[in-house]
Amino acid sequence: MNTIVMKFGGTSVAGTEKLKNIANIVKNHLSNNKIIVVLSAMAGETNKLQSYLDEFRSQNSIESDLVLTSGEQVTIGLLSAALKNLGVKSIPLLGWQVPLITDENYENAKILKIDKKRIEDYLIDNDVIVLAGFQGINLNGKITSLGRGGSDTTAVAIASAIEAERCDIYTDVEGVFTTDPNIEKNAKKISKLSYEEMLEMASTGAKVLHTRSVELAMKNNLTLQVLSSLTKKTGTFIVNEKQLIEKEIVSGVSYSRSEAKVTISGILDKPGISAKIFGLMSENNINVDMIVQNISQDGVSANITFTINQKDHDLTKLVIENSQNILSYKSLLLDKNVAKVSVIGMGMMSQAGVAEKMFKTLAKNSINILAISTSEIKISVLIDEKHANIAVKSLHEVYNL
Amino acid sequence: MNTIVMKFGGTSVAGTEKLKNIANIVKNHLSNNKIIVVLSAMAGETNKLQSYLDEFRSQNSIESDLVLTSGEQVTIGLLSAALKNLGVKSIPLLGWQVPLITDENYENAKILKIDKKRIEDYLIDNDVIVLAGFQGINLNGKITSLGRGGSDTTAVAIASAIEAERCDIYTDVEGVFTTDPNIEKNAKKISKLSYEEMLEMASTGAKVLHTRSVELAMKNNLTLQVLSSLTKKTGTFIVNEKQLIEKEIVSGVSYSRSEAKVTISGILDKPGISAKIFGLMSENNINVDMIVQNISQDGVSANITFTINQKDHDLTKLVIENSQNILSYKSLLLDKNVAKVSVIGMGMMSQAGVAEKMFKTLAKNSINILAISTSEIKISVLIDEKHANIAVKSLHEVYNL
Repeated sequence: MNTIVMKFGGTSVAGTEKLKNIANIVKNHLSNNKIIVVLSAMAGETNKLQSYLDEFRSQNSIESDLVLTSGEQVTIGLLSAALKNLGVKSIPLLGWQVPLITDENYENAKILKIDKKRIEDYLIDNDVIVLAGFQGINLNGKITSLGRGGSDTTAVAIASAIEAERCDIYTDVEGVFTTDPNIEKNAKKISKLSYEEMLEMASTGAKVLHTRSVELAMKNNLTLQVLSSLTKKTGTFIVNEKQLIEKEIVSGVSYSRSEAKVTISGILDKPGISAKIFGLMSENNINVDMIVQNISQDGVSANITFTINQKDHDLTKLVIENSQNILSYKSLLLDKNVAKVSVIGMGMMSQAGVAEKMFKTLAKNSINILAISTSEIKISVLIDEKHANIAVKSLHEVYNL
Repeated sequence: MNTIVMKFGGTSVAGTEKLKNIANIVKNHLSNNKIIVVLSAMAGETNKLQSYLDEFRSQNSIESDLVLTSGEQVTIGLLSAALKNLGVKSIPLLGWQVPLITDENYENAKILKIDKKRIEDYLIDNDVIVLAGFQGINLNGKITSLGRGGSDTTAVAIASAIEAERCDIYTDVEGVFTTDPNIEKNAKKISKLSYEEMLEMASTGAKVLHTRSVELAMKNNLTLQVLSSLTKKTGTFIVNEKQLIEKEIVSGVSYSRSEAKVTISGILDKPGISAKIFGLMSENNINVDMIVQNISQDGVSANITFTINQKDHDLTKLVIENSQNILSYKSLLLDKNVAKVSVIGMGMMSQAGVAEKMFKTLAKNSINILAISTSEIKISVLIDEKHANIAVKSLHEVYNL
């Protein structure tokens, strides 16, 4: 007898009708399996709770995690009731009841240990465990949460702990697409992707899976499937690279509009100046992505351009302006009207010319590249936001996706 | 250093502003005390959760209690955050974190044991414990609930366990009144009542305190205070009879419109017929209150009249009609247009003439008495509902309340 883990996110559990639908999906998968279902809170619920907490300026505390984890308690109780109505032997479990032990980083806890034996015991008497995602308990007996999107991580962690056959992540889309179907109507569902490609896609804007959950699946060599709770279609499998028979040169095109570009001009070009700037960013927990450094024509002053997340826009401005005396720059420019477009594929490792094709395509469309960053299986370019759609569409076409 | 328990119900915790108000009330009581605050869920929340459960026909189960107890998790987290904002050392605790051990009667669990030592330990490092009302954990590690209004019981149980100085129950009224101020504008707040009087008042319609909580306070000789969270006025103290210096003959007049009258006419007057009827009621968990039995003038057939809760109206009708062959009665009449009016007072035990005064007053107002029930400290009469207001007003006046 195998065990499958099935995770349903907020939009899939928003309302009693949707929960009844999930109960049917779960029952239909029971023939040769035991099942662990991992649920989020109903869509909108966690935002409501967060807005309460904001009023009390409470964050990263015993209190905030206590409040934020209350929503899953409702969905797991209701789904387990729905399963029992269908004659399925089911038990609902909260994070502390497993227990799913975490560290003490409230609102961003890491899982330390899952009691595998207890889960197996529950699966002797029950065919389905309905587990609350997103939550755990620390060694002080206090409830913790794994951060937004943390239910994916719960699902992968529990699947890894019990060596599940597979972990299915149900969403409101049919899988991972070659690009956003809202931009390019010819976007196709990808049937198989490597963990590495999925990680690059997630970090470059495709909001299908929580990055941490993909990393954890890769570490444990656990097969993931991303699929829709609204259709019965097979979704996208995310697997070990070795299981990919044919490696696509480019698997997909992703984009993100949540970047901001920072340009500091007229800095004295002396050693250590970049270290100072990026030291400041790091001290303030500001993540820097792409970096371009130019020495100006006078050979004395330099310009540095880098990208940050838009949410850090105001903080970055403040930090740099407050360090004017240390950096002694001439001007500071922040720009939110940029987009990052990335092409991703395992085949790029062994195939030359992918980057060249990308740059030619952008040039043909008169799109200026503001910055570039690459990895073994990804090329990202920063461009003016107004060109994002045409860039995505033309790249999707040129790589035959 | 003393410990006070303060309980706030659903209307007092409905919304962030109200929780901030409570934080101030709690802080103002800290000078010479440690405090345990017991909270309900926000008003309306438990009804919302109940309506979800109704859709899944889930009741008295692991699932129903899991869902129903999620609301207090939010209010205790937020209040503890509000207290910390005021510089108060506070910790929020759920029922299972105390732990507050109960039996396995889901939705109506009884408290078996409270870990006093753990509570005392928490009060070494903290000035306030913010405890979730209404919930506990059974010996299987599953969350249980104490039934609607159960937060009062949590407050009294915890206060008894740690031998608290007092248990203050905050509501949206200023205390217990001589009768309902909505009916009789001259109703006065009672300053002191015995447990027995409060129990009679609660069971005859005054919806101030959960009956179980008063019984528990009486058993543990714990002083209760019912007061308003909106004013700073002293409320009504509920104490041991011995602490009442002057025992009022009549302390209050209560009424209830939630009764229904059942009349079965033309039953053969043979031994065991009442036992059969009330056996049927008991088998179907229908509570019977007042009973009147008349032998009809022919000396052969009899009429039985009794009262039930209106919620059992349909079930009672069904049960009796289905037993026509056993009871062989002539007619069955159910009537919801009745009200029960009661006068309550410790002094009635030693004072004659209280009942006489009551019946005279009702007669003077041409109010017919349909049934009577009495205890040592209470006389209740069943009357036509249309006379309820005038009965309450005239009795309130005649006993000089």
